[in-house]
Amino acid sequence: MLTDNSAMTMISAYAQLEARFAKLSHLDQATGFLQWDMATVMPEGGAAGRSDQLSTLKSVSHALLTDPALPAWLDAAEQEALDPWQSANLREMRRDWRHAAAVPSALVEKLSKASSACEMIWRQARPADDFARVADTLAQLVGLVRELAEIKSQALGVGRYDALLDQYEPDGRVAEIEPLFADLAAFLPGFVAEALDRQLPPPPLPAGPFDPAQQKALGVEMMQMLGFDFAHGRLDESAHPFCGGTPDDVRITTRYESDNFLSSLFGVIHETGHALYEQGLPAVWRYQPVGRARGMSLHESQSLLMEMQACRSRGFFRLIAPRLADRFGGDWDGDALFDATMRVRPDFIRVEADEATYPAHVILRFRLERQLIDGSLAVTDLPSAWNEGMRELLGIVPPGDRQGCLQDIHWYDGAFGYFPTYSLGAMTAAQLFDAAGRALPELDQSIAAGDFAPLLGWLRREVHGRAALLDGKALLVAATGRPLDAEIFKAHLRRRYLR
Amino acid sequence: MLTDNSAMTMISAYAQLEARFAKLSHLDQATGFLQWDMATVMPEGGAAGRSDQLSTLKSVSHALLTDPALPAWLDAAEQEALDPWQSANLREMRRDWRHAAAVPSALVEKLSKASSACEMIWRQARPADDFARVADTLAQLVGLVRELAEIKSQALGVGRYDALLDQYEPDGRVAEIEPLFADLAAFLPGFVAEALDRQLPPPPLPAGPFDPAQQKALGVEMMQMLGFDFAHGRLDESAHPFCGGTPDDVRITTRYESDNFLSSLFGVIHETGHALYEQGLPAVWRYQPVGRARGMSLHESQSLLMEMQACRSRGFFRLIAPRLADRFGGDWDGDALFDATMRVRPDFIRVEADEATYPAHVILRFRLERQLIDGSLAVTDLPSAWNEGMRELLGIVPPGDRQGCLQDIHWYDGAFGYFPTYSLGAMTAAQLFDAAGRALPELDQSIAAGDFAPLLGWLRREVHGRAALLDGKALLVAATGRPLDAEIFKAHLRRRYLR
Repeated sequence: MLTDNSAMTMISAYAQLEARFAKLSHLDQATGFLQWDMATVMPEGGAAGRSDQLSTLKSVSHALLTDPALPAWLDAAEQEALDPWQSANLREMRRDWRHAAAVPSALVEKLSKASSACEMIWRQARPADDFARVADTLAQLVGLVRELAEIKSQALGVGRYDALLDQYEPDGRVAEIEPLFADLAAFLPGFVAEALDRQLPPPPLPAGPFDPAQQKALGVEMMQMLGFDFAHGRLDESAHPFCGGTPDDVRITTRYESDNFLSSLFGVIHETGHALYEQGLPAVWRYQPVGRARGMSLHESQSLLMEMQACRSRGFFRLIAPRLADRFGGDWDGDALFDATMRVRPDFIRVEADEATYPAHVILRFRLERQLIDGSLAVTDLPSAWNEGMRELLGIVPPGDRQGCLQDIHWYDGAFGYFPTYSLGAMTAAQLFDAAGRALPELDQSIAAGDFAPLLGWLRREVHGRAALLDGKALLVAATGRPLDAEIFKAHLRRRYLR
Repeated sequence: MLTDNSAMTMISAYAQLEARFAKLSHLDQATGFLQWDMATVMPEGGAAGRSDQLSTLKSVSHALLTDPALPAWLDAAEQEALDPWQSANLREMRRDWRHAAAVPSALVEKLSKASSACEMIWRQARPADDFARVADTLAQLVGLVRELAEIKSQALGVGRYDALLDQYEPDGRVAEIEPLFADLAAFLPGFVAEALDRQLPPPPLPAGPFDPAQQKALGVEMMQMLGFDFAHGRLDESAHPFCGGTPDDVRITTRYESDNFLSSLFGVIHETGHALYEQGLPAVWRYQPVGRARGMSLHESQSLLMEMQACRSRGFFRLIAPRLADRFGGDWDGDALFDATMRVRPDFIRVEADEATYPAHVILRFRLERQLIDGSLAVTDLPSAWNEGMRELLGIVPPGDRQGCLQDIHWYDGAFGYFPTYSLGAMTAAQLFDAAGRALPELDQSIAAGDFAPLLGWLRREVHGRAALLDGKALLVAATGRPLDAEIFKAHLRRRYLR
C-alpha cells in the first residue's frame, strides 16, 4: 500500500494541470477545425447541427476549466519547484482559469443568447441602414457586457474596460494605450492632409478580369515565398478571410474578386503572416497555454508586418510585376503598381481604410466602447457620437449608420475591447520590422529578391519561438530594445507617404 | 424551498438521459467531421494533432457514457411512464451504456494501443507479403479481443462472438446467420460454375482515359438523380471512399481513376445509398440513440440496394449510355456496357469481387474469425486455414498471403464481428428491392427513366423513417413481410446471371 500511496503523490499538482490543459487544448483545436469547416465547406443544412456540436464542445471545455478541483491545484502548483517555463505556463493557466471561473454560468448563457440575438438583428439592420432596429437589443447586450466587465474587473483586480481588453490582449491596459493613441490622434489629421496634398494622380494599370485560378496560384506562390509550410496548412476560400486551424495544421482562407486581384493577394499575405506565427510556435510546447501565441496585438503585428511592412514595398512590387504579367497578361510596372496602390484616402469604412487612416477608425471605436462600458455614452446616442468622432478624426461624416456605427460586427456580437489590438498590431509591426532591419542590414534587398528566409528567421527567434513565455511588453522590449513607441510607426508613415 | 424541490423532481431520469445522450451525439458528430477532414483535406503534418484531438474527444465521451450516475438513471427511467418511442430510445441507451461500461478502461487502452501497433505493422507486412512479420502482434491483439468478447459476453448475456457482432449489428446472432450462410455456401459453388459456363466473352467498350472532372460531374448528376440533398451533404475525394458526417451534413467520398470510370461511378452510387439512409432519418429524432441508423447490415443494404439492385440493371445502363457519350466521347451502348460489367469472376481479393462470389469471401472470414475468437484456430495457422477455405468456397488458392489473409485491414485493426454484415447487407438489399418491386409495379420502368422518387419514397417509409425504432429483424419483417431469406438473394443471382 505504501508503494501505491507514494505512486499517487508522484503526480504533482502542476502535472495534473498540464494534463488538464492539454485536454482543453485538444478540444479547442477540435472547435477550430469545426469552425474552419463551417466557413469553407459546410453545406447550409449543416448549420443547426454545427451550432449544437460547437456549443457542446464549449460546455465540456468550460466544465473542465471551471472544475472545482482547479483552484487547489493552481495554489499547490505555486508551491512546487517549477522551472521558469513551467512558472510561465502556470501563470497562463491561472489567467485562463480566472477569466472562466469568474463568470457565473447564468451570465455566460445570457451573454451567448444576447450576442446571437443581437448579431441576427444587426444582419438585418445594417443593410437597411436602420440603427433604431437594433438599438434596444444592443443596449441589452451592452448591459450584460458591463456586468461581465464588473465581475472580471473584481476577479483580475483591474479596471472594467481593462478586464475586457485582457480577454484579447493579456495584460493590455488603457493607461498604456491611451497615450499612444492620443499621440496618433494628434499626429494623423495633419499627416493625412499633407499626404493628400502631395499625392499625385494614380498611374493607370492593366484592367482585369483576373482569373481566380491564376489568383489562387499566385497566392500559393507568395505563401511559399514567405515560408508557409504546406505540410502543416492549407489555403481555401471563405466569405470572410481568416486564419484558423492549429499550429500543426494552419488553415488560411481568402476570397477572389475577378476585377481586383490585389485584395486577395494582400489578403493572402496578411493571413500568411498570422499563419507563420502559428507555424513558428515551438512544437515541443504544444497544447500548453505558454506555448500559444501571445495575444491579439502581436498576432496582428505578424500579419501586418508581412502585408504592410515587408510586401507593400517598391522592391516587392518590382519583384512581382513580371509574375503578374505571366499570370494575367498585360504590361505591369512595379513602380506604377506601387504608386497606384499605396494611397491615402479617408473613407467611412474601416476594412477598406489605408494604413494611414486606419488608426483613426480604431481610435474612434476605442473611445466609444470605453464610454459604452463606463456608462457615459448611451447606446441611443451612439450614432451621433460616431459621426462627431469621424468629423474630428478624419474630417468626414458618413451619410448613414450603415457606413457609420453599423459597419462592424464586433459590438453586435458582444466583442468589446478587441478594436485597439488592430492599431497596436500596426504599431508593433512597424517597430518589429524596424528592429529586423537594424539586425539584418540586407533585409530590403533580400525581400526585393523574394528571399524571406532572413526575415522569417529573425521573427522565429525574436517572436514566434517565444510563444507566451514573456508578456507582450517584455517580448517587444526583448525583440526591439524598447516598449511600444508611436514614433516608429509615425516615421514609417512619413517615409512612405511624404517622400 | 418547496417550489425548488418540486422543480427538481420535474426533471425525470429519462429526461436527464435524453440530455446526456444528446451531448454524446454532438461529440460523436464532431468526431465524424474531424475524421472526414483527416481523410479528405488534412495536410500530413496535422496527423499527430488530429490523433490527440480524436483521442480526447473519445475519452470525454467515454467518461460521459460511463458516468457512475447512469445505471441509476437507466433503472429509474424504466419505472417512468414512457411512450413506445421513449421506451425504444431507452433500450438503445442501455445498449450503448452496456457496451461501454462493461469494459475496464485499462482494457480499452490496451486494445487501442494494440490495434494501432498491429495496423502499423500490417501496413508493412501486406506489401511485403510477409504474414510472419505481423503474426505475433496479431496474436496479442486477438488475445485482447478475446478478453473483450468474454467481458461483453457476460455483460450482454450472449455468446462471445455474438457480443462482438452486437457492436456492429445490434441483436445479430450467430445462430441466425449460420444457417443463412450455410445455405449460400452450399449454393454458390454450383451457381458460380454454371454462371461461368454460360458467360459469353465481354463486348468491347470505348477506351479511356476518362477525365476525372467529367467523372465527378457524372457522379454529382447521379447523386441528384438518386435524391441526394446537396443542402445537407457533399461529395469529395479520399483514398478510401466512405460515407461520413452526420444526417444533416452527409459527407461521401470517392476516388477517380482515369482508366476506369465505372469504379468511381458505382462507388458514388454505393455511398449515395448510405447517404440517403442518413438523410432520411427523421429530423425530429436527431441526437437520440433511437434516431440513428439501425446497424451495419441495414446500412450496407441501403448502399447495395442502390448500387447492385437498382442501378446495375439494363434499364439504368441504357439510361446512362448517352450521358457517357456526352461526357467521355465514344459510342456507348447500354446493353454492351451491362454485359461487359455484370460478370462473375472468382478472384482472390474481396473488394474486387463481383456480387456472386462476394459472399464466399465473407463466409470464409466469418468462419475464421469465429475460430480465432473461440480459440480453435491459432493465428499462426491462419494462412493455411485461409487458403484451404478459398479452395473449398471458390476453387482458387492465392499465390501469397498478400492476396490472402493479409488483404483486409479489419482484423489487424481489431474489428472482429464486422465481416458478416457485408453479406447480410447484400441479402437484405435483395429482399428489400424485391418487396419494393411488389409494392411499386412500375419500379423498373421508373428507374429506367431516371426517376428514383418512388423507390426513395418507399425506402423512406419502410426503412429510413423507422431509424432504430424497431430491431433489425422486426424492421425487415415490417418492410418485406418476412425475416431475412436467402432464397430471394439466390433468385436475384439466378435471374441476373443464368438467364
